[in-house]
Amino acid sequence: MTRLLDLPALPVGAHVQDTLLVLEVEQKSSAGGGYTVLQLGNASGRIASAPFWEQDQPQIVGIRKGHAVQVIGEISEYRGRRQLRVTTISVLPKESVDLTRLVPSVGDVSRYWETLDGWRREITKPRLARVLGLFYDDDGFRHDYERCPASIAGHHAALGGLLKHTVEVAAIARTVARAAGAEPDLVLAGVLLHDIGKLESYRWDGVFEYTDVGYLLGHVVLGARMLDLRLDEPDEPPCTEQERQLLLHLILSHHGKLEFGSPVTPLTLEAEVLHWADNASAKTASMGDALHEGDAFGEGLISQRKFWQLDGRRAYRGASDWGAPPAGA
Amino acid sequence: MTRLLDLPALPVGAHVQDTLLVLEVEQKSSAGGGYTVLQLGNASGRIASAPFWEQDQPQIVGIRKGHAVQVIGEISEYRGRRQLRVTTISVLPKESVDLTRLVPSVGDVSRYWETLDGWRREITKPRLARVLGLFYDDDGFRHDYERCPASIAGHHAALGGLLKHTVEVAAIARTVARAAGAEPDLVLAGVLLHDIGKLESYRWDGVFEYTDVGYLLGHVVLGARMLDLRLDEPDEPPCTEQERQLLLHLILSHHGKLEFGSPVTPLTLEAEVLHWADNASAKTASMGDALHEGDAFGEGLISQRKFWQLDGRRAYRGASDWGAPPAGA
Amino acid sequence: MTRLLDLPALPVGAHVQDTLLVLEVEQKSSAGGGYTVLQLGNASGRIASAPFWEQDQPQIVGIRKGHAVQVIGEISEYRGRRQLRVTTISVLPKESVDLTRLVPSVGDVSRYWETLDGWRREITKPRLARVLGLFYDDDGFRHDYERCPASIAGHHAALGGLLKHTVEVAAIARTVARAAGAEPDLVLAGVLLHDIGKLESYRWDGVFEYTDVGYLLGHVVLGARMLDLRLDEPDEPPCTEQERQLLLHLILSHHGKLEFGSPVTPLTLEAEVLHWADNASAKTASMGDALHEGDAFGEGLISQRKFWQLDGRRAYRGASDWGAPPAGA
Amino acid sequence: MTRLLDLPALPVGAHVQDTLLVLEVEQKSSAGGGYTVLQLGNASGRIASAPFWEQDQPQIVGIRKGHAVQVIGEISEYRGRRQLRVTTISVLPKESVDLTRLVPSVGDVSRYWETLDGWRREITKPRLARVLGLFYDDDGFRHDYERCPASIAGHHAALGGLLKHTVEVAAIARTVARAAGAEPDLVLAGVLLHDIGKLESYRWDGVFEYTDVGYLLGHVVLGARMLDLRLDEPDEPPCTEQERQLLLHLILSHHGKLEFGSPVTPLTLEAEVLHWADNASAKTASMGDALHEGDAFGEGLISQRKFWQLDGRRAYRGASDWGAPPAGA
Amino acid sequence: MTRLLDLPALPVGAHVQDTLLVLEVEQKSSAGGGYTVLQLGNASGRIASAPFWEQDQPQIVGIRKGHAVQVIGEISEYRGRRQLRVTTISVLPKESVDLTRLVPSVGDVSRYWETLDGWRREITKPRLARVLGLFYDDDGFRHDYERCPASIAGHHAALGGLLKHTVEVAAIARTVARAAGAEPDLVLAGVLLHDIGKLESYRWDGVFEYTDVGYLLGHVVLGARMLDLRLDEPDEPPCTEQERQLLLHLILSHHGKLEFGSPVTPLTLEAEVLHWADNASAKTASMGDALHEGDAFGEGLISQRKFWQLDGRRAYRGASDWGAPPAGA
Amino acid sequence: MTRLLDLPALPVGAHVQDTLLVLEVEQKSSAGGGYTVLQLGNASGRIASAPFWEQDQPQIVGIRKGHAVQVIGEISEYRGRRQLRVTTISVLPKESVDLTRLVPSVGDVSRYWETLDGWRREITKPRLARVLGLFYDDDGFRHDYERCPASIAGHHAALGGLLKHTVEVAAIARTVARAAGAEPDLVLAGVLLHDIGKLESYRWDGVFEYTDVGYLLGHVVLGARMLDLRLDEPDEPPCTEQERQLLLHLILSHHGKLEFGSPVTPLTLEAEVLHWADNASAKTASMGDALHEGDAFGEGLISQRKFWQLDGRRAYRGASDWGAPPAGA
Repeated sequence: MTRLLDLPALPVGAHVQDTLLVLEVEQKSSAGGGYTVLQLGNASGRIASAPFWEQDQPQIVGIRKGHAVQVIGEISEYRGRRQLRVTTISVLPKESVDLTRLVPSVGDVSRYWETLDGWRREITKPRLARVLGLFYDDDGFRHDYERCPASIAGHHAALGGLLKHTVEVAAIARTVARAAGAEPDLVLAGVLLHDIGKLESYRWDGVFEYTDVGYLLGHVVLGARMLDLRLDEPDEPPCTEQERQLLLHLILSHHGKLEFGSPVTPLTLEAEVLHWADNASAKTASMGDALHEGDAFGEGLISQRKFWQLDGRRAYRGASDWGAPPAGA
Repeated sequence: MTRLLDLPALPVGAHVQDTLLVLEVEQKSSAGGGYTVLQLGNASGRIASAPFWEQDQPQIVGIRKGHAVQVIGEISEYRGRRQLRVTTISVLPKESVDLTRLVPSVGDVSRYWETLDGWRREITKPRLARVLGLFYDDDGFRHDYERCPASIAGHHAALGGLLKHTVEVAAIARTVARAAGAEPDLVLAGVLLHDIGKLESYRWDGVFEYTDVGYLLGHVVLGARMLDLRLDEPDEPPCTEQERQLLLHLILSHHGKLEFGSPVTPLTLEAEVLHWADNASAKTASMGDALHEGDAFGEGLISQRKFWQLDGRRAYRGASDWGAPPAGA
Repeated sequence: MTRLLDLPALPVGAHVQDTLLVLEVEQKSSAGGGYTVLQLGNASGRIASAPFWEQDQPQIVGIRKGHAVQVIGEISEYRGRRQLRVTTISVLPKESVDLTRLVPSVGDVSRYWETLDGWRREITKPRLARVLGLFYDDDGFRHDYERCPASIAGHHAALGGLLKHTVEVAAIARTVARAAGAEPDLVLAGVLLHDIGKLESYRWDGVFEYTDVGYLLGHVVLGARMLDLRLDEPDEPPCTEQERQLLLHLILSHHGKLEFGSPVTPLTLEAEVLHWADNASAKTASMGDALHEGDAFGEGLISQRKFWQLDGRRAYRGASDWGAPPAGA
Repeated sequence: MTRLLDLPALPVGAHVQDTLLVLEVEQKSSAGGGYTVLQLGNASGRIASAPFWEQDQPQIVGIRKGHAVQVIGEISEYRGRRQLRVTTISVLPKESVDLTRLVPSVGDVSRYWETLDGWRREITKPRLARVLGLFYDDDGFRHDYERCPASIAGHHAALGGLLKHTVEVAAIARTVARAAGAEPDLVLAGVLLHDIGKLESYRWDGVFEYTDVGYLLGHVVLGARMLDLRLDEPDEPPCTEQERQLLLHLILSHHGKLEFGSPVTPLTLEAEVLHWADNASAKTASMGDALHEGDAFGEGLISQRKFWQLDGRRAYRGASDWGAPPAGA
Repeated sequence: MTRLLDLPALPVGAHVQDTLLVLEVEQKSSAGGGYTVLQLGNASGRIASAPFWEQDQPQIVGIRKGHAVQVIGEISEYRGRRQLRVTTISVLPKESVDLTRLVPSVGDVSRYWETLDGWRREITKPRLARVLGLFYDDDGFRHDYERCPASIAGHHAALGGLLKHTVEVAAIARTVARAAGAEPDLVLAGVLLHDIGKLESYRWDGVFEYTDVGYLLGHVVLGARMLDLRLDEPDEPPCTEQERQLLLHLILSHHGKLEFGSPVTPLTLEAEVLHWADNASAKTASMGDALHEGDAFGEGLISQRKFWQLDGRRAYRGASDWGAPPAGA
Repeated sequence: MTRLLDLPALPVGAHVQDTLLVLEVEQKSSAGGGYTVLQLGNASGRIASAPFWEQDQPQIVGIRKGHAVQVIGEISEYRGRRQLRVTTISVLPKESVDLTRLVPSVGDVSRYWETLDGWRREITKPRLARVLGLFYDDDGFRHDYERCPASIAGHHAALGGLLKHTVEVAAIARTVARAAGAEPDLVLAGVLLHDIGKLESYRWDGVFEYTDVGYLLGHVVLGARMLDLRLDEPDEPPCTEQERQLLLHLILSHHGKLEFGSPVTPLTLEAEVLHWADNASAKTASMGDALHEGDAFGEGLISQRKFWQLDGRRAYRGASDWGAPPAGA
């Protein structure tokens, strides 16, 4: 496999001939006429095209957000910003492209599976293990789950992000469960099931988007539905009705409060543990992402803008090595 | 040391001769006359006295909430509730009593110190270790810290509760830090310092209460003040001014939002990690406590009342062994 | 069938020999000793028993909230309040009693069925009619639906209250749909399905209460689950997947906002119509109930207390006949 | 009367010679110089002018938002959007134009009057009928009321919108009143009076805007004031003081909550009915409007933007004919 | 005039023969039977009666909250609390009693009038002075205004409280106006008019209560109505329509926010000044009252309960004389 | 000193040769190419430069927000807006410029000092006077305090704004204290200390900005820290520990509520007075500022936009002279 083109690092003058993803098609107008700019990206990042003026429109007819395109061009500079002056551009059939090279990705997911499957094997409750196996021993489920992002544009918004997030939540939830005296197997089950509804509420074959059913029913209820459906499938129900209700409650209550989209609030210790572990992973990931948005900081230590994913807070990236021991210590 | 009297388990007719704590002095009135009931307790739990009628008042003259008393009496029953019919009661000097036998306690704290001190020794940053040592190598500080409760009437409201809570937050925060890529030493420092203000805002020599300065300044600011004060003491400042600000920020922002009493919101990754780890420990402990309030459930699985410490939620104590493997599995 | 005993109207001295429901068993204490009061009721209203003192306890051993009891006694008066001085009381087997005589009821429900079934027959969309028939042509469903209350203690908290509420919502929703240009058949389907989850989340065989699954999953999600289940039953799916999603969306969004317990907000015109029609029926019924609580008003026109079911508002019962035409008009 | 020019349907190249309304005068700047765009509209919709460059400014000197103008020009296209290239434009005196051709309108209002007046004639309470007649038998009032919009830019924002909204609220309120057992005549009176304050708080002679007194006092209080004023006029007061207070209460409380602008909350059943009927009409009309904004949906079923008039919700326009009966049914 | 009986200071054994006000008639029950306690008060404070048992009821037949009664009795003590053992009690005709001796009062109001009238005379704007004179030169208005309390049970809840509050708001508003550059005459007019609606929304002839119209329309709108009414009375309008609107805006917006009951928010500098001056007087008076509730503090400096009038805050009454200068200063 | 150039009043064609401050460096793009506009200002106001095109860039290399620059140019007009066509521009060393001529300023501050120092001399409590003197008798403190703005972009955002605000708060607080019976010396102390933290949380040497420590700790806590620090300095503590806590409480609670950034709420009467006086000065100043933004109003009396500093309210600038006495008065 050829090396991934490092878009953010290409110098002015570099020649480009590669497959990229159309992230956005922006129509702009000016007194001198209208023009179009394409936002192009791959897993390394993104770059804007030079303007396509009225006379260049035939080049880009039919090109839409989400298309994979074969591009030939050169990096130029305009007012201090690099742009990609496109010579040739053509749409590629979706089947012919490797999506993991075109969108952000968490990379190799096998390590996440190893961790999760290992923890899953430690479960000592037969009926619980059996329920989880309905999903996690199913190759189709694993195929989707290891690709799905954990959010559209927030935390872990990358291919494989949901799996990575799941491992994080599991690690945190196990620690919290130990401190709180919660039933560890049930907590792990909650972690493994809480976000399965995202497989039906997100679309990640190109640009990340909500599906219609994602808007209409929401990932919380979709997850509960998926569990209900699988539990009705086997000839013999793998668990009791009360056990099923406990698992559904874990899924439905994991947002913690009605106003965050959970139709019921956590009533069990395991549901409470799951909720806080989920929050801890999601919110700290968002802060980490914000701190990595270099252009948000300029030359200062405090971000020049407020981050929507931090509910409008700023971030501070001052650090210290706490270095030399104080004299005489 | 004699065995602790197990108040909740004493049968009717049992003879009592022991030291107890006066938790509450309740004046009640009835058409038949006024009477007084004492709520008496020790580390095992609590029991109400039989009424002291008008003619019994001389027995209890001068007895106040928070007093340790020597009691002789017998367990009787009234309308299905056990009560302690007191024959003799007298106030003991505070110095002569062992407080850990009279109030709820987390028990032996040495294991918590071992864990915390072990983690502290792993810190690789000399100036940071030095700052923490100003507190955690100070015997007076350790004496107080291992006794202080983590709250007056909520989570970890027991002697040593603050230390136990600190170990829990540390364990959780370390896991979250690993997932989020936060600086682990700084996170641990935040954990160790975030609640030190409670040493000045709580009083635990008998009944747990706020101090006046606890009301006037609050434990969040008191903690920051204590850090400032210690850092001004040594001949040579153990850390830089920017480092001091980062530590103060960790303390001040650990409640996460202004409306929860933090004058600033978390701006660093380490502050964000600390906030969520603190929450995860406190909130799941509250849920665990609620589930242990047996009398809140009656014969059902859902609590008959809403818990204030869960923001008005109920709790569910249904459980399952997820037992026998499903047939044919 | 004998006439229903009119509890609120019985004069002092009246002899009572009838079947009543135990609504509450209240333990009270006084300096003179403990005593028990039973709140007893039937469909006409409620009355308190005279105290059962310590020596009377054998009479009421084993009597619990929700029991139907055969009572012999006499109406007496105490401090201006009537009470039932009980001579004999014994528990009846639940099967032997007619519940509609013991709890509030909306009365004969056949008129509600006639209205609803009539409107249902006007539906012109075959697949939609078929889906509704899965429930509304099912005798078991009708048996439950015509008994279930619409709430535990709020609006339409009576046997048959859910059916009465459904007819009201349907009438209002049809009018709103006409004004707003919504699809009337789909609106009616939403009305008929929106509260079916209450059949599983309430218990009404005696005192009205939530079921455990009612607490764990909530009536909103339970209703969606019931629809999913029935739609999976028939050999051939009665509607398309998109149609199923639209119906599930109607159920899930009918509370209108996340903080009111809907995991998604209304996205279609029909869901919006359903939400406001449901609100209009529920809220105005609550105001009507408040105005009928005679003892809340004393001699004034403004209620002396604030009603919880009106979010803490008071009510005003001043009225006028707007009578004689003004002179010279 | 000549046919109304259908602005949204005019093809490129079409010649235009007609009276239009200036909805907005937009100053824009570009590196190539500043330019002006006029938003022009009539009752059929709106279209933007081609830019007026610096040299074209004399053409549009003195033209302001709200002016009626006589325009000659031609439809051209620029970057896929149609625009009106103006050759000649001149301001017309307001008296010479027919406003109903220039702004959105609900069309012929006589059917709304017929419905409302019919319902009004059914009122059986003499003094109430007399009060309503002070407004609804007054030609000046009717002249204004049948023109006033129901909002500036939200629901029923069209000439005659207030009258249409009133009929909708009346129809809904009558149905709700029947279900809730409210006094129907008083409810109708509330409907007819609740929004009369908009006659003084809106201006609709061209662009819809708030008046100064609309900002200073608000339509809720202005309506109450108008009622007070009229009731003071007749020689003999048409109703009692208590009756007047009930009517004022209906007007003042119809927003339902303080935070929505009602200085008092509904205390009577009739006020509660009015509030929910008003809401049902307004909110479902807003959803209907959103679903008609074709350009908000692109090619999808879910709107690409969130609607401010739906408090930031999206809308879904998927539909079905629920068509063929399922096989075998 | 005889001296006012100092109820809070009467020693046990003191003979009482005086006129008191019945503040509350409390029915209480106990196992020994029901009994009645009267809360009796005068302008100096309040005291509870000893219980009236069943056999004592004829003594108090017909006595209601708000009655003025002639009482003969003696101060006794019960469980450390003084009570008034009543020998004779009889209702007095309302006309025969001096209300200012029976309810809390701000005392002689002439100094407040002097201040306010003095400031009013400084007004230099003829039409404004004329409008204010419609009220403040009217003896009937002054008679009511100098008696009305400023609230039912919160700040300045005393006879004359509204006048005292008005002087305070005026003093503060004048200072704020000077700092903010607001028109001082208009600010004073706002102060004088903002609470006139309380004359119609409160009743103070005995116990302080809301009137029905106070509930139905609220004092904010009632005040605006009173102004409108007076302005319509004179043969020639004393001010222009725009001026009238500005005054109405001052009244209507003085609560500052919709959720506090103002139907419009302040749009002028004078309205903003009035709002904050009103708040400053009301809120600090509430804090002052709380600090004077001696029994809320016990022996501590922090109140043992949270005050509803401070939105649930506690209060601290620690003080210092900041006394001797520090040594060497 | 030469006269300050009156930027808002310069006519087209005027020659400019003066020192200005760079308030903003704006990069803009157009189809014709990118360009840069400088926002330039002095204490009189601000003006935009004409565009610097690609070829003009060398002129402005290295020029940043906050720089003082020497400018030669001429006022031209473009689309009705005046702009400064720059011929020569060069950066000046910060030391060489007089900041009070370049940024908004409250002007001569000596009158504010006279007032404040006068009031301070009236303090009769020796230890309190001593504490205040630690700051207000310190020339360094006075040097900073008389320059610091009271906010970055809100009320009193001018050099010397904090001092002016302090005088206003003091004047208001003294009046409120008198009405509420608060201790006047302590209130004055609170006024003088409440905002001292702004000296460390703001930067005003050019553009007004937050410092990093301002973001990390906030001005409320910074102020408390500054007081603690100074009180630890003298050989003998100038006040008792309890007195220190009361002063710290005044600073920490002055925002009144947790959600406004105070970690504790006011518990003393003096803290309550301070809070409302601070609010009254700040909020009315914001309204005054809004009314002075002439361009927000166009030709109307109601502002065409909502002001962020008024929480999204509009403002009304209608006024009257309340002029001629009404006829016959």
